[in-house]
Amino acid sequence: MNIKITGTGSFIPSTIEKNEDFYNHEFLNADGSKINSPNEVIVEKFKAITGIEERRYAKPELSNSDIAFFAAEKAIANAKIDKETLDYIIVAHNYGDVKIDSEQSDTVPSLASRVKHLLKIKNPKCVGYDLLFGCPGWIEGVIQANAFIKAGIAKRCLVIGSETLSRVIDAHDRDSMIYSDGAGAVIVEETTEEGGILAHESATFAYDEAHYIFFGETNKPESDSKRRYIKMYGRKIYEFALTNVPLALKSCLEKSGYDITDVKKILIHQANEKMDEAIVKRFYKLHNMKMPEGIMPMSINTLGNSSVATVPTLYDLILNGQLENQEINKGDVILFASVGAGMNINAIVYKQ
Amino acid sequence: MNIKITGTGSFIPSTIEKNEDFYNHEFLNADGSKINSPNEVIVEKFKAITGIEERRYAKPELSNSDIAFFAAEKAIANAKIDKETLDYIIVAHNYGDVKIDSEQSDTVPSLASRVKHLLKIKNPKCVGYDLLFGCPGWIEGVIQANAFIKAGIAKRCLVIGSETLSRVIDAHDRDSMIYSDGAGAVIVEETTEEGGILAHESATFAYDEAHYIFFGETNKPESDSKRRYIKMYGRKIYEFALTNVPLALKSCLEKSGYDITDVKKILIHQANEKMDEAIVKRFYKLHNMKMPEGIMPMSINTLGNSSVATVPTLYDLILNGQLENQEINKGDVILFASVGAGMNINAIVYKQ
Repeated sequence: MNIKITGTGSFIPSTIEKNEDFYNHEFLNADGSKINSPNEVIVEKFKAITGIEERRYAKPELSNSDIAFFAAEKAIANAKIDKETLDYIIVAHNYGDVKIDSEQSDTVPSLASRVKHLLKIKNPKCVGYDLLFGCPGWIEGVIQANAFIKAGIAKRCLVIGSETLSRVIDAHDRDSMIYSDGAGAVIVEETTEEGGILAHESATFAYDEAHYIFFGETNKPESDSKRRYIKMYGRKIYEFALTNVPLALKSCLEKSGYDITDVKKILIHQANEKMDEAIVKRFYKLHNMKMPEGIMPMSINTLGNSSVATVPTLYDLILNGQLENQEINKGDVILFASVGAGMNINAIVYKQ
Repeated sequence: MNIKITGTGSFIPSTIEKNEDFYNHEFLNADGSKINSPNEVIVEKFKAITGIEERRYAKPELSNSDIAFFAAEKAIANAKIDKETLDYIIVAHNYGDVKIDSEQSDTVPSLASRVKHLLKIKNPKCVGYDLLFGCPGWIEGVIQANAFIKAGIAKRCLVIGSETLSRVIDAHDRDSMIYSDGAGAVIVEETTEEGGILAHESATFAYDEAHYIFFGETNKPESDSKRRYIKMYGRKIYEFALTNVPLALKSCLEKSGYDITDVKKILIHQANEKMDEAIVKRFYKLHNMKMPEGIMPMSINTLGNSSVATVPTLYDLILNGQLENQEINKGDVILFASVGAGMNINAIVYKQ
């Protein structure tokens, strides 16, 4: 028995927020002090590091569970399965449903229940739950689906990564330009076909690193609002990721029995272009190799960082021929990898 | 190989909120209309139905992850294990960390990461994630730990249920008297000892039932706050639970191969005394039996409904001889059962 992804779907919100749309922002340092550069320069520097030119925001009337549902519908259609045969609906997210006019996260009922409701699935044996694991949540959901199938308690699972980060950003923080909204979904199931999930690796670094990504107040000092926003210590995360992600990838690949030269693509969480490149370069350096051209498909340029949604969306785009000069073919060995809040790291070696 | 609970711990907050403490509340119906009874009568009726005389609230300086940590520390000590050998930390909750002066749920990093940080666990292979599954979240966490062990990706897991519902209640809603704060934790692990998890059952009813428990505005009509609170359609939930929970228990028991007469205790989610009694009575009626005396230990009277925390707390109290006239002995077959937001139902047949 193998365990494979038999269908994919993604939802890319239609509202495009360009870098120029941030020119009128009052950006401040974390201590509230002014930044001695015009916004055009701040934005240009930001683009040079992250690779982001524009990002997507969900329309005001849509919530996180709505866009999760859109991606799920497509994955179910793509897999050509009867939705009533799903054993699990696993929704990875971080902030629940945040209404446009609210600062509250709504997590009851779970987003999985909301998605199941919207999918109009009747079968009560289809169990829906939400998984919070930072940006690596979607990969972790696939790892959990894999475990349920191996344990004999499931045959077919829907795993979704969905996030509306545009609802939790501080307009006075340069990092707000990183974040985006999006949703990606896959069907994971038992199959007699060759390939599938060959190995996986997960880790939580919480001793020193637990609060590298956190919920904090605005950079605007005179604000008396207690409202909190997504915040991060970018430099610490960069160093942490560069030290630990290449090792996790190496360990995962070794478990799979495949060689570095067998790897056709690395689908890494679209966190930050420079950081992603540095991670993958170091991964190859650990094998005394140079990073091969085109090994690391990127979508961050136009889609930004939509947390749990980046990897399944990237995968869906490539399979559908929607990412220029990128393809994944039957039999290809690929890596999924992510790093994010927790701090969590995970990876999967997958044979198409 | 068997999979057993080898340690338990719970944290019962020290602040007691008595029914009399609600006498000065302005209770309103969901449509904002007045209730034509004095508060003393409202509270008395409430007590007659739910069995609740008092409930516990966490001290203002403590958050949900803090009390989860307190329960976890005790479970680790009770199991006499090295915390660095844990493969998973699974935290079931619903609303994350809600600070006393905030209406926002804080879920990044996950509560599991926070608990791991507080436990000072260094091993990165100990993976921490949060599970949102309504009140049945803790039982579902045990079912997931069981699956990970069966799938060969874990040997030892810490499963916590922790909630601070006092931070999400509407003071103008009579239902606010139900909710309580608390945390319970267990160690689940592979063992050669006899017994352990014999069968389990999970279900999500989301076609009609998804929004029976939801996040809604205050009953106070003139409030212009958009703040939302835990809300429920009590009558619908009662009917739903009475129809579906006894059948889930029956199905789970059948899978275990044990007979109804073998069942020594039913540890059911402390939702509402009358509802819990009606469920268990109907479960016995399905087997043409009367509910045996003392089969259903209750803690709701003094501890209220602390969501995911009720079942592990109840279990911990009984094993520690802290619940009058209740005990669980080696070899006893017991049932864990829960129902809540989603709407989710689950059960485990467990041999002590």
